[in-house]
Amino acid sequence: MAILSSLSSATLCGASVFPKVLACSSEFSTNLSSPFESSKICLTSSFPASRHPKKISTWNLTRNVAPIQGIRCHAMQVETRECFTAGKKFQLSDVIEGQQFDREMLSAIFDVAREMEKIEKSSTQSELLKGYLMATLFYEPSTRTRLSFESAMKRLGGEVLTTENAREFSSAAKGETLEDTIRTVEGYSDIIVMRHFESGAARKAAATANIPVINAGDGPGEHPTQALLDVYTIQSEIGKLDGISVALVGDLANGRTVRSLAYLLAKFKDVKIYFVSPEIVKMKDDIKDYLTSNGVKWEESSNLMEVASKCDVVYQTRIQRERFGERLDLYEAARGKYIVDKDLLGVMQEKAIIMHPLPRLDEVS
Amino acid sequence: MAILSSLSSATLCGASVFPKVLACSSEFSTNLSSPFESSKICLTSSFPASRHPKKISTWNLTRNVAPIQGIRCHAMQVETRECFTAGKKFQLSDVIEGQQFDREMLSAIFDVAREMEKIEKSSTQSELLKGYLMATLFYEPSTRTRLSFESAMKRLGGEVLTTENAREFSSAAKGETLEDTIRTVEGYSDIIVMRHFESGAARKAAATANIPVINAGDGPGEHPTQALLDVYTIQSEIGKLDGISVALVGDLANGRTVRSLAYLLAKFKDVKIYFVSPEIVKMKDDIKDYLTSNGVKWEESSNLMEVASKCDVVYQTRIQRERFGERLDLYEAARGKYIVDKDLLGVMQEKAIIMHPLPRLDEVS
Amino acid sequence: MAILSSLSSATLCGASVFPKVLACSSEFSTNLSSPFESSKICLTSSFPASRHPKKISTWNLTRNVAPIQGIRCHAMQVETRECFTAGKKFQLSDVIEGQQFDREMLSAIFDVAREMEKIEKSSTQSELLKGYLMATLFYEPSTRTRLSFESAMKRLGGEVLTTENAREFSSAAKGETLEDTIRTVEGYSDIIVMRHFESGAARKAAATANIPVINAGDGPGEHPTQALLDVYTIQSEIGKLDGISVALVGDLANGRTVRSLAYLLAKFKDVKIYFVSPEIVKMKDDIKDYLTSNGVKWEESSNLMEVASKCDVVYQTRIQRERFGERLDLYEAARGKYIVDKDLLGVMQEKAIIMHPLPRLDEVS
Repeated sequence: MAILSSLSSATLCGASVFPKVLACSSEFSTNLSSPFESSKICLTSSFPASRHPKKISTWNLTRNVAPIQGIRCHAMQVETRECFTAGKKFQLSDVIEGQQFDREMLSAIFDVAREMEKIEKSSTQSELLKGYLMATLFYEPSTRTRLSFESAMKRLGGEVLTTENAREFSSAAKGETLEDTIRTVEGYSDIIVMRHFESGAARKAAATANIPVINAGDGPGEHPTQALLDVYTIQSEIGKLDGISVALVGDLANGRTVRSLAYLLAKFKDVKIYFVSPEIVKMKDDIKDYLTSNGVKWEESSNLMEVASKCDVVYQTRIQRERFGERLDLYEAARGKYIVDKDLLGVMQEKAIIMHPLPRLDEVS
Repeated sequence: MAILSSLSSATLCGASVFPKVLACSSEFSTNLSSPFESSKICLTSSFPASRHPKKISTWNLTRNVAPIQGIRCHAMQVETRECFTAGKKFQLSDVIEGQQFDREMLSAIFDVAREMEKIEKSSTQSELLKGYLMATLFYEPSTRTRLSFESAMKRLGGEVLTTENAREFSSAAKGETLEDTIRTVEGYSDIIVMRHFESGAARKAAATANIPVINAGDGPGEHPTQALLDVYTIQSEIGKLDGISVALVGDLANGRTVRSLAYLLAKFKDVKIYFVSPEIVKMKDDIKDYLTSNGVKWEESSNLMEVASKCDVVYQTRIQRERFGERLDLYEAARGKYIVDKDLLGVMQEKAIIMHPLPRLDEVS
Repeated sequence: MAILSSLSSATLCGASVFPKVLACSSEFSTNLSSPFESSKICLTSSFPASRHPKKISTWNLTRNVAPIQGIRCHAMQVETRECFTAGKKFQLSDVIEGQQFDREMLSAIFDVAREMEKIEKSSTQSELLKGYLMATLFYEPSTRTRLSFESAMKRLGGEVLTTENAREFSSAAKGETLEDTIRTVEGYSDIIVMRHFESGAARKAAATANIPVINAGDGPGEHPTQALLDVYTIQSEIGKLDGISVALVGDLANGRTVRSLAYLLAKFKDVKIYFVSPEIVKMKDDIKDYLTSNGVKWEESSNLMEVASKCDVVYQTRIQRERFGERLDLYEAARGKYIVDKDLLGVMQEKAIIMHPLPRLDEVS
């Protein structure tokens, strides 16, 4: 899992982070206007902050935006078109939560991810994002997630500004508001990837910034790019997303990856979701209500063996000690209740897979 | 403010950090000697340490230095001359304090900053500093300042070696002297940007290093690049520096930015400076004496409203809790005494501006 | 010392880190097969993890490996052959410990280091490692070592993913196994440079990873690249390694650099090693036994003056307070017992040198 997860993650990030460039280049490859003009079109929403652009209304295809002066454009540095044709189908200005995606956008993102895997495997260094600067603003350290974004950026020829521990190391420690920090950092970079310890922080940052913001995890909120990777992995491994049964196991109350994953699975047909978790960390009602109102069948169970025998995917997660604070007794009670082991593998269907977002303790033996 | 400040900062750094390259290229663009030779001239003082160069006497124009063998040269990678003509007028080997600048040098730096803004806005990636390595050695974390230097370096095609928290993470924690650290780092890089918790540390580092050192803030000492940015901002917003009135407000005893700013303002004609601060953090005598001996009119006042009504610039700063140690009572007494709010805006002149070096707490509502 | 040490270190790293590329290019420069094919040969063991390569049997020359599809190859981006001819003589897939090297390999590495010094001094930016990503995974902060690897990588045109303090900042803090972390990071990068607080960690990482792993220090274990630099420095300064006498002074029980250095010195003829250390931090038996079984003469002494008068090299090290835990009394007793000062210089032979791996406290006055 680790290998697949990290690799796809690296490529998927590349894809989900830079839709505008991709959109731009699709223009580039599908009309006769000069690359410079078409590239203007794609970049309007990644415009440097100081020039107060009109922000593109999120999630709409914007095929015709009036050209604007003085913007940074790199379409002419692109080696091949092939890498881009997929980008045509969607336009993002921020990546904040699972709910924001629709089925068509997801399949377009999968197409881009496949193109990115070609680039990752190809023999030459990609210059796709040459001249672009990504700021990874991590208020909560996460080597895995941070390096996956930075690896994707550098594999595509872009550059990175990074802070590993903004909570301690930045002015946040001196009491600066997130808004002031974002307004500063957007002056230095073309896109911000943010991990924060508070749910909703990414949305707040996106509302402030005039450049795209990617939510790389906001407290117990969401982790949309991990979930994008997870559905991409399921699609690749199982071959479909419609009609699958998925067991979400472990800390469902604090696990932002399972929350985002549930939102994304809800975009597909005839999906059945089983929640298997200790009583104290059960899936919250907002997700259950969302699934119900979107016609997704879900069920809670305390019998992992029985559930596993019926699922295509068993998605195991870690009981997050850090979310229990002083109540280590509750933590000890919760962890180790549901373990993926040989016996479980025994009852699972032949083509079923086990997934884990990592880090992993002893919940997968 | 934040946006303007950060943006200009990014560009100004580019300018103030690499005068030699700029000087070099001015040679390149103003004589007929081969670019290679002229580039030799410019780099003599950014010479790798291990080759013990003669250090250029600081602040003098050195138009003719004997060529030296085996140095790294990139003048040939420069796309346009235009970016450089401004560099001709000054030559720096370190940036340590506000006092080191003179009026002519400042106006030359402004010219470079304007050129850099063009590059920052232009459509192609600059290769101006390709092949150069900058080490950002931060003993005191500062995401804003560090990223502004790193952004400038990367926007100009250079590379960065970075340490976010050298105080804890480097051998300093094991008791190594600053000199030993500098002698090591100068072997890895072409220029060092240093933030340190002790006043005078930058000067000590510059005395040790055979490569240029930029002071990015040394304890309660100075913060010259912030001040360069501030006078550049005033020039751009007010249109002049001669004859302006500036109110420096807040923590003037511990604020290194106001100290450096005062030194720079003293280079211009008929400047009037008002100091408005709680009793406990009044501006220190060294600055007052410097201003007096340089014929700059200054005055202390406790009436911010009255001062604001007379000023072109109200420069507000944060009361720095971290400088008060245990005496939180004194901190609480000091903060919130002088606030920039709607009422204050009401009395200010039409074209007057409010500036703040950030981070900002509640001193600007 | 610091300057020489850091400089050579930067270049030597470049050499020891990328033997395969060097080997590859030697192929490139010595046969008529297309550069693309030959480059395939060299890269088989730096193959991205996700494609499960057969790992090259370590330390053997593998001149003929069957071509494999879809690998990343950069040999065609190389400007000159000259930089490579040296690489022909050895093939590494990991750098873990001093014992792994033999005399022929060391002299080949020295040849590469000399080539690298040319590159470091040359006027153009090297593209030798363009498109390669190095992950510096430091569980124990070390600005000196980390920046030396990163500087080497960037001087050669490569890119870096970095974490300064993985022990606190990565999932290690949440209890993730080193193996899981390595499996993730190998998906993001082409090579891993790891500093760890536990002896043996590098070996464990190398056993897990399908990409090369460099040990940049593993607790009290070894520090092979520092030792490679040290023997290279001795060769350059003294002009030979056979028949030299070396005094290893200071904390020999906890000093990983002296341990690796002893292993490397054992590869040469008629070497005499003197151990001079406080009783409490004497050299451990594993090293003494290794030297004896390899026919290296060694001797313990408490008389630094007498030893120094007989040696070509006095290698001084710091008493490592952090290894004494609570026993500061023992630390105080141990430190300052053997100091390199003017008197010692007085008794040393004319061409003898003093070396120190840094950081340095007062053991060299």
